[in-house]
Formats: sequence, structure tokens, C-alpha cells
Amino acid sequence: MCHITFLAEEDMSFTPPVKLIKFLIEHSIDLDSILGMPIFEGVNMDLIGDVLSAASNFSQNKWAPLNWSGDQNPAKLIDGQVISSPGFKEAYKDFVDAEWLSIATSTEVGGMGLPQVIKVGTDEMFYAANMALGLCPMLTSSAVKAILAHAESSIRNKYLPKMVCGEWTGAMCLTEPQAGSDLGPVRTKAVDNGDGTYSITGQKIYITWGDHDVADNIIHLVLARLPDAPLGSKGISLFLCPKFMVDEKGELGSKNSFSAIGLEHKLGIHGSPTCVMEFSSAKGWLIGEVNQGLSCMFTMMNEARLFVGVQGVAIGERAYQAALQYSNDRVQGRTISGKDAIIGHPDIRRSLMDMKVKLLGARAVCLAAAAAGDIASHSTDEDIRKNAHVREALLTPIAKSYGSDIGVEVSSIGLQVHGGMGFVEETGAAQHYRDSRIAPIYEGTNGIQAIDLVGRKLRRDGGSGMHALIVDLKKIYDLANESSYNLTDCSSALKEGIQTLERATDIILQADEIDALSSATPYLNIVASVISGAFIIKAVVNGAIVGDENTDNMLSLCRYHAKSIMPMAKNSIEFLSSPNKLVFDFPMEQLADL
Amino acid sequence: MCHITFLAEEDMSFTPPVKLIKFLIEHSIDLDSILGMPIFEGVNMDLIGDVLSAASNFSQNKWAPLNWSGDQNPAKLIDGQVISSPGFKEAYKDFVDAEWLSIATSTEVGGMGLPQVIKVGTDEMFYAANMALGLCPMLTSSAVKAILAHAESSIRNKYLPKMVCGEWTGAMCLTEPQAGSDLGPVRTKAVDNGDGTYSITGQKIYITWGDHDVADNIIHLVLARLPDAPLGSKGISLFLCPKFMVDEKGELGSKNSFSAIGLEHKLGIHGSPTCVMEFSSAKGWLIGEVNQGLSCMFTMMNEARLFVGVQGVAIGERAYQAALQYSNDRVQGRTISGKDAIIGHPDIRRSLMDMKVKLLGARAVCLAAAAAGDIASHSTDEDIRKNAHVREALLTPIAKSYGSDIGVEVSSIGLQVHGGMGFVEETGAAQHYRDSRIAPIYEGTNGIQAIDLVGRKLRRDGGSGMHALIVDLKKIYDLANESSYNLTDCSSALKEGIQTLERATDIILQADEIDALSSATPYLNIVASVISGAFIIKAVVNGAIVGDENTDNMLSLCRYHAKSIMPMAKNSIEFLSSPNKLVFDFPMEQLADL
Repeated sequence: MCHITFLAEEDMSFTPPVKLIKFLIEHSIDLDSILGMPIFEGVNMDLIGDVLSAASNFSQNKWAPLNWSGDQNPAKLIDGQVISSPGFKEAYKDFVDAEWLSIATSTEVGGMGLPQVIKVGTDEMFYAANMALGLCPMLTSSAVKAILAHAESSIRNKYLPKMVCGEWTGAMCLTEPQAGSDLGPVRTKAVDNGDGTYSITGQKIYITWGDHDVADNIIHLVLARLPDAPLGSKGISLFLCPKFMVDEKGELGSKNSFSAIGLEHKLGIHGSPTCVMEFSSAKGWLIGEVNQGLSCMFTMMNEARLFVGVQGVAIGERAYQAALQYSNDRVQGRTISGKDAIIGHPDIRRSLMDMKVKLLGARAVCLAAAAAGDIASHSTDEDIRKNAHVREALLTPIAKSYGSDIGVEVSSIGLQVHGGMGFVEETGAAQHYRDSRIAPIYEGTNGIQAIDLVGRKLRRDGGSGMHALIVDLKKIYDLANESSYNLTDCSSALKEGIQTLERATDIILQADEIDALSSATPYLNIVASVISGAFIIKAVVNGAIVGDENTDNMLSLCRYHAKSIMPMAKNSIEFLSSPNKLVFDFPMEQLADL
Repeated sequence: MCHITFLAEEDMSFTPPVKLIKFLIEHSIDLDSILGMPIFEGVNMDLIGDVLSAASNFSQNKWAPLNWSGDQNPAKLIDGQVISSPGFKEAYKDFVDAEWLSIATSTEVGGMGLPQVIKVGTDEMFYAANMALGLCPMLTSSAVKAILAHAESSIRNKYLPKMVCGEWTGAMCLTEPQAGSDLGPVRTKAVDNGDGTYSITGQKIYITWGDHDVADNIIHLVLARLPDAPLGSKGISLFLCPKFMVDEKGELGSKNSFSAIGLEHKLGIHGSPTCVMEFSSAKGWLIGEVNQGLSCMFTMMNEARLFVGVQGVAIGERAYQAALQYSNDRVQGRTISGKDAIIGHPDIRRSLMDMKVKLLGARAVCLAAAAAGDIASHSTDEDIRKNAHVREALLTPIAKSYGSDIGVEVSSIGLQVHGGMGFVEETGAAQHYRDSRIAPIYEGTNGIQAIDLVGRKLRRDGGSGMHALIVDLKKIYDLANESSYNLTDCSSALKEGIQTLERATDIILQADEIDALSSATPYLNIVASVISGAFIIKAVVNGAIVGDENTDNMLSLCRYHAKSIMPMAKNSIEFLSSPNKLVFDFPMEQLADL
């Protein structure tokens, strides 16, 4: 393909919105409750600001410049070894050297021990800079968490130190062609060797960073079935298979008998090698109890899902920054608002505001989920821990699906702002549109998130977790009413939103299973549009109280949300009156035509 | 890239929903008024049914099988000549031989003379089968229309016969790097040779099918500026430049001095060569008056915009059919509705209904615009023609933007239904997501459509065109109330929708320019969500009157629309209370952060 040289090379630099992220961390969550816990002694806003600034510098200087080249030069499989995109090895090493991987991992195993809410802020920047590369440490984090929670101490001692710092990476081998969203049908076999090890045989697909050359060893966690195991999901165990054997001194030995036999040709995140892995009597060690593999995996599911939501926000933010830059540079047509570039066109300016506010709301939901997680993990009060755990579990599917949906939507608007230049690959706008599309799919499709929300998180506990959230939303409403700031527009939108949410929650709680499942996604959308607005209002109120200089700008964004996103709840609730009928009345056999 | 052989090769066949399209043509528009016009004597539903069936056969057998291969094997530029994707030349010849190109072109110049509404039906199938290839005849149609309207008879006689049948194709050379949405800054120069010809020199970008090998000659219509022309859009003239010169006998002679010097590397429609064209003293003939080039181009703008809306529906329909097939085949997880495949999951079934209903509404809007166009062009009554022209002008930006937006949205849902398989390119779901994304951009971005709607189409005539449409919507409401069918849900949604639309229209009519422009897109969305529902209700009412056996199914879709799409109008109107403030309050210089 001829490169069109007269199209100016777009400046693909990226600067994260540090002030905005900091504002949300400081004002949209109960940061004092988090920092007041003994484990976070010494952590304060100054430190948080320093960490965020450092992450911003790192992401824009080290990772962002490789995002486009990684897209254009995907990982390759050569002689059974995956060769990563040019520059990725060095960029990953920089990340490890800067100790970004484990900032929220316990100090006991070598992490930095900061709250998860900070990691939400820093990881957003890394994903925005280079999502494909960012998946490598993400998978490592997940593996670390599972090993930490379930492995014997000998295994932990052997693998964790190198994984926590990122010298070795982790990979999760779950999916098989017939076992994706439902892992019950996993067929990969494990045979007990009688010496404390197992032989693993089978094929796994969609293995993110399943093989690569950016680190010396890759520690795979593999779901497999023992010969006498029960059928379905209750017969699956979890095994650890290192790419290279590790001896007692921690030295690397021979290669284990598994390897990547294929790479997927994907729509996006080309820099992330998605492998087909073939295990041929690979040596593995059991993690956790026999047949408890799925529940071991679910240990790190909340965290993984939350960070997929963050990925959506991240790609959206990068798309937004690119669109903003383009609209400040591109001159086209007569504008009416005193600026020659297309940002002077009201519809372009509206598009930018739309992107910015959608991202803000989704980001606030992610932070709220992370904050609940911090308290659930570290509060010294058992009741508080328990309630926070319920809150984390409730918010996680919303953070995952809303963040990832917004990522796709905002990337699409970003491409649109570029006009024809968005459809040609040179600007990078199309890459964000392609990359963002994975987030609503992996770690449980957004449909599964919605089902999780209405099933496990709402109906199973009779709605008590949601009712507690609604109580908190009402507190935010009261705070908004008492605020010296003029929040009338926002608080009246919130009031209506809360009423809609209460009505919708009652309907779902009283519904048949099929009605509840038919309206799961519309219900999730109601919750997301209301709580995202509420958390922004909370940030404005708190910002106003301490006189944060950025509060006026946050108020503008808050008002936009109140007039464009919060009202969407009213729309979605119409669907809840007769969902089963709406979804199932049209005969299934005739869906192809009429 | 290794192809993952154990992933079953997806069956990428495609069968268009002929019954559904036929139902809409028969019942959602005033077909009798169209067929009652003298020019369409002899056209009846039997003929329409035959044409639609033939188009369906052609599209699924001849064009659909090349869609994926065209994506994977884009056109190439070799030694200044574009070589089309494998098979495209033959597939295009089949299209010409079957005489599909000019079914709605006047019989006087060799067309078939059928109503535009039928072409909307057939072209949807062709675009769905192969949008990249379908763009070639689309551009030819546009060029034919411009030549027919503005060229001298010698030019018409020389070029039209070969173009109407498609033996030669057309291309539109408008855009330059600095002149896209706004063509005023066009710099390409035209110099009068004094012998009735002009010399054209300059560079054009984004030229769809600007060069190729599927036909013997390509007739370019080129916007250029004469030396003494006024600045801006009032100084642009239109010229015809054939790729090969044509002598008096119609024989092809020497090559004209312009050629493709580059092909864009695009997100989608890879099979459609998007060329950079370099004109170096190319020989051209003036079309229309000097300096009237832009208004000549606008002659065919309504038609081109309408058919971009149709493209959105088309790609969406193909994505829908693929998702439907996948959800009938893929088994995953325990379902609760008596079917093992994932279509048994309520959220998947809801996703399919959502896609189907969205497409239905957008299709109905496209048909309504086409119907108005048929009457505007052919009624024997001047008043009727005039009113129909206003209606066509009003509906066109909505058809274009709503159809293309829905195309993107539905393709995205289709990809989502495929889960992980949607993100790998093998299934083709990702291709639809990529291909659909161009439609909101070209032929005037959807933002420009919204501005066109509130400016030229609404405020310029004081709202009289929109008020006439609202009168018709009220008639549909009355019909729904009188219907023997139970349309209560739908008619009450329509009632509320009409009220919202009236309120929104009043607001826009009374607004400042900056308020009107700031809320152009939300206003367009209000109109689209209301009228799409109204036209479906009309189809149900009319289907019920004649006892069409498919009316019950249409009613199910109509109800789904009433509960999920029509209510969106209420959401969008909130924005209209203070749009300028919402859009402009946040300081422009701080948009990058806070």
C-alpha cells in the first residue's frame, strides 16, 4: 500500500488527564476511609499525586509511542516461539524496572501495597498508552493473585517473587473451543504422576500473552480435568505449568512440553499475542484443592473484570485525546464560535463533551468498585469488610460492562470526529475503535455481566446490596441539596434517576427468572446511568467543600451528564414492563425474515 | 498467521429478508400513490416481488461469496493501474448483465424506470452481499444523474448509454486534503483550452473506485477552479474527464492524463479501492454552468445520501443474519428457554430482537424518503410534487444518518453475539463492524446531516415541512387507534413520541443559531426514534387491513420498538433545554484535562 505522504503524519502522542483522575480519586470516593485503614498508613494525596504523575510520564514516554507500531507489526510465531512486536521487550522491561506491576500487591510478597484505587488510576494510563502491552502485566497480576490465594507455600515461594516484580509473567489457560463463557465442558486432561506432579494434555485457545519473548519465563495456570473427576464445572482443577522448569535454586531448566501452535488474526490489540496453546504431557502442579479449579479462578475474577472496565475507559480516553487534538488542528468550514478549527463547530464540541462526560462517569464507577475492594480487603472491622465486599461484588459487573461499552462508544465518536481521516488507518483513530472492541467480550461478555448483576448480585440476596447502594445514592442527593454550589439540575436528575432505579429494582426482584434475564442488560444500563451521575455529583459536592479549584469544571461535566446520560434510565425502564413477551413473542424459527 | 483449523469455517452465506422488505414496501409507504402515477403503469406488487426475489438470488449467489475474500485481498495499485480484488471483475460483469444498475433510471436513457422504493429494496441486498463492490455502481448512478441533469446533449449521448448499463463506470472527484466536508477550498485548477475542452490539474483524495479494472472506461466528474473564478464555493466548476478518450463513434482512444497514485489503507471496505488521483493537464469537458459545480453535485446528493443510509441497514442486516446463524449453532451454557444453542439465552435473543427492530425502523425511514422522492420526481400534480420534494429533503438527512448509525450499532451487537469468535477475523463479524463504520462519515458526516436537518430543512422554512410530517404522524396515530389490531402499547408510545417531537421542534425553531446547532444531533435522534416507530405502526395497520399473514410478526417488532426505541426521544429532549451552555461552558482550553 502506498503511504499517502501528503497527509500530515498525525502526532500520536498522548497525555493522560492526571488532574481529572486525581480529582475523582480525591472527591468521588470515600478516600479518607481507605487511607484511614492501618495498612495504608503513610499514603496521602501528595504521594498519590506523585504516583499518578510518574505513571503519566511513564505511559506517555515509554509505552504510548509503541502503540501504533505494535498494531502495524503484530507478534509473530516463528518456530514455535512468539516474537513480540518491535520495542515491546524493552518497554516491558522498563515497566518492570519502574516497579509498576505490583503497586497494589501486598508488601508481604514484595508489592508496593498501595490501594487499588490508585492502581485504577495508573493502569488506565498504561492501557491508554498501550493496551496490547498492558495485557501482559494484567494477566501476570491475575496469576499472582490466584497463586497467592491458593498455592502451597513451596509453590508460592518458588514463583511469586519473580512474578510480583514482573521478571516472569503469568498466563491464564481457561478457554477451549467448546468451553468459553461456560468452562464446564473443559476437556484438557490431567494425570497424577504420583510424585506430586501432574501431566497436562490438551489444547487451549484465546491465551493472551500465552507465549512471548518479553520475559524469561511464563507461568501458566491451566484448567484441566482429572480422570475420575465429576462431569461439568465441578470436575475441573487448576494446575501451574511453567514454560521453563525452575529448580530449587530458582534457576531455569528445561522447557516444559507445551507451546504456542497458532496466533489468532484479530480485529484489534494486534500487539498482544493471542495464542493457541498445545499441552502434550506438560508437567504441572496442582493449585488449590482437586476439582476446585473454577472457584480458584474466581478469586481473581472481580479484579480482572474491574480492570477490563478500566481498559474501556483507557482506550476511550486515548481516542478522546486524539479527537480533541484533531479538532483543534483541522480547519474546515465556517465556524460560529470564534475558533477556526473544527472545534469551533458546536456539533464537534458537543461530540467532545459527550466523550469526556461518558468517560468520566464510567471512570467514577470503576473507582467506586475499586474503593469497595480496598475496604473489603483491608478494613479492620468485619461488618465493614462484609458490606464492602457486597458493594464490590455489586459494582464489578457494572464497572466491567459500562466501562467497556463506553470505551467502544467513545472510540467510535472519536473516529467520527476525524471524518474521512478516521476511516484511514494512518491517524490511529481506527485502531482505538478496533482495540476497544475486545473489552465488552473478554472476562465474561457484557451480557454475562448483566446476568451476574440481576442473578447473583441482586436477586440472590433479595436486593439488600442494591438497597444499601440506593441508600448511599440518596445521601449523595441530600449532600447535593445542602451544597453551597448550585446543583439543582443535577440533583433533580439524580432524584428522578433514583426513583427509576428503585422501581426497576423492585420489578427485577419480583420478576420470573425469564423476565429478569430478558431485562438484565436494560437493567444494568439503568443502574450505570444513575450511579455514574451520582458519583460525579458526589465529586462536585466534595470538591466544593474543600474549595478544589477544578470544581467548576467538574460541575460543567456533571450538568452535561444530568441532561444527557442520567435521563437514559427512564428510557430503559419501559422495557421492563413485559420483557419476556418483547423478547420471545417473535417466533424463533422466523427470525431470519418475517 | 497460522489459521486456527479447529475453528469451524463459518458458513458466510447470506439470505436477504425478502418477505420483510416486501412487507415494508407494500404497507409502510403509500405505495398506491406511487404505482398510481402514469410513469409506473404496469408496476404492481407481483412485479415488485419478482424483482426483489431476483435481487435476493443474485446477491446471495454472485456477490455474497466474494465479500470476505475481497476484505482479505484488497485492491492493489500496480504500475499506476488498480487491480481489483479477485473475482470482482466477473461479479461486476454479472451485475451489469443482469441489468441491476439502472432499475430506477428513466427508460428514456435506457433504464428500467422502476420506482426508487424498489431500488432501496434491491440495493440493500447488494450492499449486504458486498458493500465494497456495491459502491462501484453507486458512484456510477450518481455520475449518471449529474450528467443527465447538467450535461449538454452531445456529452449525454456520448457517455450515458454505456454508463446507464454499467459498461463504463463513474467516479466523483471532489475531496482534496484541505477540502473535505467543506468543498470551498478546492484548489484543483481548470484551464480553458479554447476548443471546448479544459485542462485539469490537481490532486484528489478519497476517490471511491477512482481506478479499477472491472470496466473498460471510467468517467470522472471533477470539481476544479477556473483561473478567474471567485474564491470559495462560488468559484468551483464541474468537469467530465474520461479515463480513456472516446471518439465520435464511441470507440476508446488514448488514455487521459490522470491516474491513481495511491490507495488508502482503510479500516474497512477493503474491496473498494479508495484512490488518490493525480490530474496532470487532464482533458475535461465542462458540465453545467461555469462556477456552478457545487450545485450540480448537489443534484445527486439526496439520492447518494439516501443510499448511504441503505448501506448502513444492509451491513447491519448481514451482521444480523450472521449473528442469528451463530446463535443457532453455538452451544454454550445452560439455557432456560428450550433450545440448547445460545439463542436459548434470553440476553442473546434480546440482542437479536434489538438488531432486527433497529434495522426495521431505519429501513422504514429510508423507504419513506425514497417514496417521497418517487412522488417528487413523477407526480403529475405540481403541488404534490412540491410537497413531496420538501418531504424528501426533510427525510434524507435522517435516513442517511439514522441508517448509517444503526448499521454501526447493529454490527457491533452482531460481533458481540459471537463472543470471542467475533473478535477474531475468521467469522466475518469483525468485517461488518469495520465496513459499516464508513457510512456515518461519507456523503456528509452525520453531524453535517443533523446540521442540514435543523438548518436548511427545519428553520429555513419555519418548520412547515416538519409540521406537515407531524400531521402525517398524527394520522398514523389515529389509524392505529381505529385498527382492529391491539396496538395500544404502540399508539401510546407514538402519542408520547409525537408530543416530544412537537416540543423539540418548537424549541429548535425558537432557538438561537448556536443553541440550534448545539442540539442538532440530539434533535435528529428524536425525530428518527419517533418516525421510525410511526412507519412501522403504519405498516402493521395497513397489513392488518388487507389481512397480510405476516402482520402478527410485524406487530411483535412494532411493540419492541415502542418499548425500546421510541422512548429514547424523551431522553434526548432533556438536552434541548440549554444546549449552548451544556456544550460550551466547559473551557475549551482545558478540555484535555480538568
